[in-house]
Amino acid sequence: MSNPTAAMIVIGDEILSGRTQDTNSNHLAQQLTLMGLDLREIRVVSDDETQIIGAVNRLRMKYTNVFTSGGIGPTHDDITADCIAKAFGVSIDVRADARAALAQNYENPEIELTETRLRMARIPDGADLIDNPVSKAPGFSMENVHVMAGVPTIFKAMLAGLLPKLTSGQEIISETVSLKMKEGDIAKKLGAIAQENPDTSIGSYPYYTNGTFGCNLVVRSPDAARVQQVAALIRKAFSEK
Amino acid sequence: MSNPTAAMIVIGDEILSGRTQDTNSNHLAQQLTLMGLDLREIRVVSDDETQIIGAVNRLRMKYTNVFTSGGIGPTHDDITADCIAKAFGVSIDVRADARAALAQNYENPEIELTETRLRMARIPDGADLIDNPVSKAPGFSMENVHVMAGVPTIFKAMLAGLLPKLTSGQEIISETVSLKMKEGDIAKKLGAIAQENPDTSIGSYPYYTNGTFGCNLVVRSPDAARVQQVAALIRKAFSEK
Repeated sequence: MSNPTAAMIVIGDEILSGRTQDTNSNHLAQQLTLMGLDLREIRVVSDDETQIIGAVNRLRMKYTNVFTSGGIGPTHDDITADCIAKAFGVSIDVRADARAALAQNYENPEIELTETRLRMARIPDGADLIDNPVSKAPGFSMENVHVMAGVPTIFKAMLAGLLPKLTSGQEIISETVSLKMKEGDIAKKLGAIAQENPDTSIGSYPYYTNGTFGCNLVVRSPDAARVQQVAALIRKAFSEK
Repeated sequence: MSNPTAAMIVIGDEILSGRTQDTNSNHLAQQLTLMGLDLREIRVVSDDETQIIGAVNRLRMKYTNVFTSGGIGPTHDDITADCIAKAFGVSIDVRADARAALAQNYENPEIELTETRLRMARIPDGADLIDNPVSKAPGFSMENVHVMAGVPTIFKAMLAGLLPKLTSGQEIISETVSLKMKEGDIAKKLGAIAQENPDTSIGSYPYYTNGTFGCNLVVRSPDAARVQQVAALIRKAFSEK
């Protein structure tokens, strides 16, 4: 049986302008690999309603889980929650449980929970809250779409609470063989090994550091014994040179 | 007149498994911002023919330029060039100019330019080469799709040669106002300023560092004077608190 699948949507002009380096998708990728969810696609889109709704509706039909980061704060450019409601064709309003979560932040919530702040308690109808232990304003899961904050500390904290609730798959085991050889010198033999061992996936990742070429060959499979066998084959093939 | 647009396709299982943090798209985003190309979308896809061809054909129709990174080496998992040929419905073969570029790497190209290495000189019919000053194996531009290497040093070098050949737009000027305030305390006034100055774009990027919340407000526009004016408005609005 193959593993459940996943996609990520990173929402934010700041990534597309180059101002900010997105790190949430890398963190998500690592966590999903550990629990056997197969991350198939990442999309970065701008703070634009059409783009967000388009990506959400395309990817939620295609993959088991969709994770989003960004755009759920209180400012005018935070439009993710509204876009999710539109994507699913449901209403959105301030919800009592989200308001209660948010209120934990304030000594006098009756005064301090301004209209602006209450924007963060607006939840699409039918969604489940995702806990935010850092700044309280919750994320939410609407069916298979999991909506989280863009600030990395908060994204990580929300994800840590969410992931144990999702159906996991078989962890993918990997082993890396590092060679100080150019890809062109190994490609033929490596291709043959890949062809003879189709139950494992073998990736070749070249690098160029301080004037030296090399590559990391990564063998991946849910079967740890097979990963070891194929990594050993690769080591043997290239140690003789 | 609005600026030319762009999209990026990052090709590689190693990004989706979390093994590697993609940095090429952030570098591209910064370079494009400087020359007034409007990066609208980034997609990360796996080393999978259907996914690559799908993304290329979708995005090349939609945007002025598409940039790809990854999958143009000599190993079995390098399938980008073939996918581009299929996406455009053209043939692909070893080309003399690409072979000559590649041959510069070797003292005895007749012997050393093996069949495997020659894979890197396979160019879709009708493409223009992109120079690779680092490791010689060229990238290529097929119409508006610019195909480059995944190794960051090589991606940067290829991009540096390519960008001056593209039609640029108006550089987008930005100014950042940093506030040690929570977004909830500024959202209302900030929203009003954004509404009153629709010719500029104002983004609010919250952060949470060492237990402190703050946000960076970024004003963007091709008009430097307007950026200054609106940034001054924002400073004035929040210095009185």
